[in-house]
Amino acid sequence: MAAPTVKVYGPPMSTAVSRVLACLLEKDVQFQLIPVNMAKGEHRSPEFLKLHPFGQVPAFQDGDNISLFESRAICRYVCEKYGDKGNKELYGRNPLAKASIDQWLEAEAQNFNPPSSTMSKEKLAKVLDVYDKRLAESRFLAGDHFSLADLSHLPNAHYLLAAPDAAPLFTSPNVARWWDEISSRDSWKKVVDLQRAAKVLQCLDNENGSG
Amino acid sequence: MAAPTVKVYGPPMSTAVSRVLACLLEKDVQFQLIPVNMAKGEHRSPEFLKLHPFGQVPAFQDGDNISLFESRAICRYVCEKYGDKGNKELYGRNPLAKASIDQWLEAEAQNFNPPSSTMSKEKLAKVLDVYDKRLAESRFLAGDHFSLADLSHLPNAHYLLAAPDAAPLFTSPNVARWWDEISSRDSWKKVVDLQRAAKVLQCLDNENGSG
Repeated sequence: MAAPTVKVYGPPMSTAVSRVLACLLEKDVQFQLIPVNMAKGEHRSPEFLKLHPFGQVPAFQDGDNISLFESRAICRYVCEKYGDKGNKELYGRNPLAKASIDQWLEAEAQNFNPPSSTMSKEKLAKVLDVYDKRLAESRFLAGDHFSLADLSHLPNAHYLLAAPDAAPLFTSPNVARWWDEISSRDSWKKVVDLQRAAKVLQCLDNENGSG
Repeated sequence: MAAPTVKVYGPPMSTAVSRVLACLLEKDVQFQLIPVNMAKGEHRSPEFLKLHPFGQVPAFQDGDNISLFESRAICRYVCEKYGDKGNKELYGRNPLAKASIDQWLEAEAQNFNPPSSTMSKEKLAKVLDVYDKRLAESRFLAGDHFSLADLSHLPNAHYLLAAPDAAPLFTSPNVARWWDEISSRDSWKKVVDLQRAAKVLQCLDNENGSG
């Protein structure tokens, strides 16, 4: 069997890396996950900066000619390039569905992501109020189908729900129902498994004194 | 002549509103610009919240059935829906061109926009260093053509260049060449005219004591 042409560079614990992994798993696209040791500054090496000029993770390659960065741009590319594979609703089947997904994907990037990264509970509560109203009208953010817009929330929400301070924000009825449904998808469970495996490896590495 | 089906709600001085206006002008799509008096809290009215659940500008409608928010999502929609009109390179003509544009559009949203909104000069200088290297290799951010990725920088960069503190950040040779080229496009000049006209109206309104 040939090695997958898709390569993702970065640790699966990174929220941006795990966003891309969840997308590849939904689309049933094989990939190689290539470690980048950020503690050792590998993301600042001249070699890595050729893949990602801002020195962030993930970097992404598909074959020899396609090299991309920015997790949401990579997700959009994967959905377009591998349209026939896996979950075909992920980025919509028509321009209007796509526009609705883009709109809520931007809401995630611009409204949900900043307060969830800085753990600004007050701002996050306001955003989740809007989500609860929206999710009272539709099963998923962009409509009837699980899409990139929902998927893109998984990485940050996963960390927030592990924080005793932030978890209560996700208890309003529609947000809670939505979170239960999207976080129990096989694709996301596999990402969480990859994160656990990476943590175990890191732990063993530290015990062996090589970290 | 029938009224345009496209409506943009919000003041042209808003960076997000002007991003959408620049896109519509590049695509040669007629539109109605509908004022939203934010000082009077019109963006928090129940009527406006139906158009934009976060109570931000712009809100956008195309005909009776399509209602969108988030400026970059609106720009993507306009390019897809009006593919045959105006500037046909704006969102690429093939999946690879589109992926490159998405990547730099995300770089604008995630890397350029936050420090340019908060005027964090140090962070902005680092971002513009990466841009200068990129623009040494290619005429525009995503390649040989002016695209949504370049356009999306116009609103914030326009304000930054009016600030004595921030303007020197744009003097590195490739960034300066790029800025000269993108800011002198007819589409952007028209947006700046709309901003000036709105300011004059606001000023007259204040003098008449109705503001």
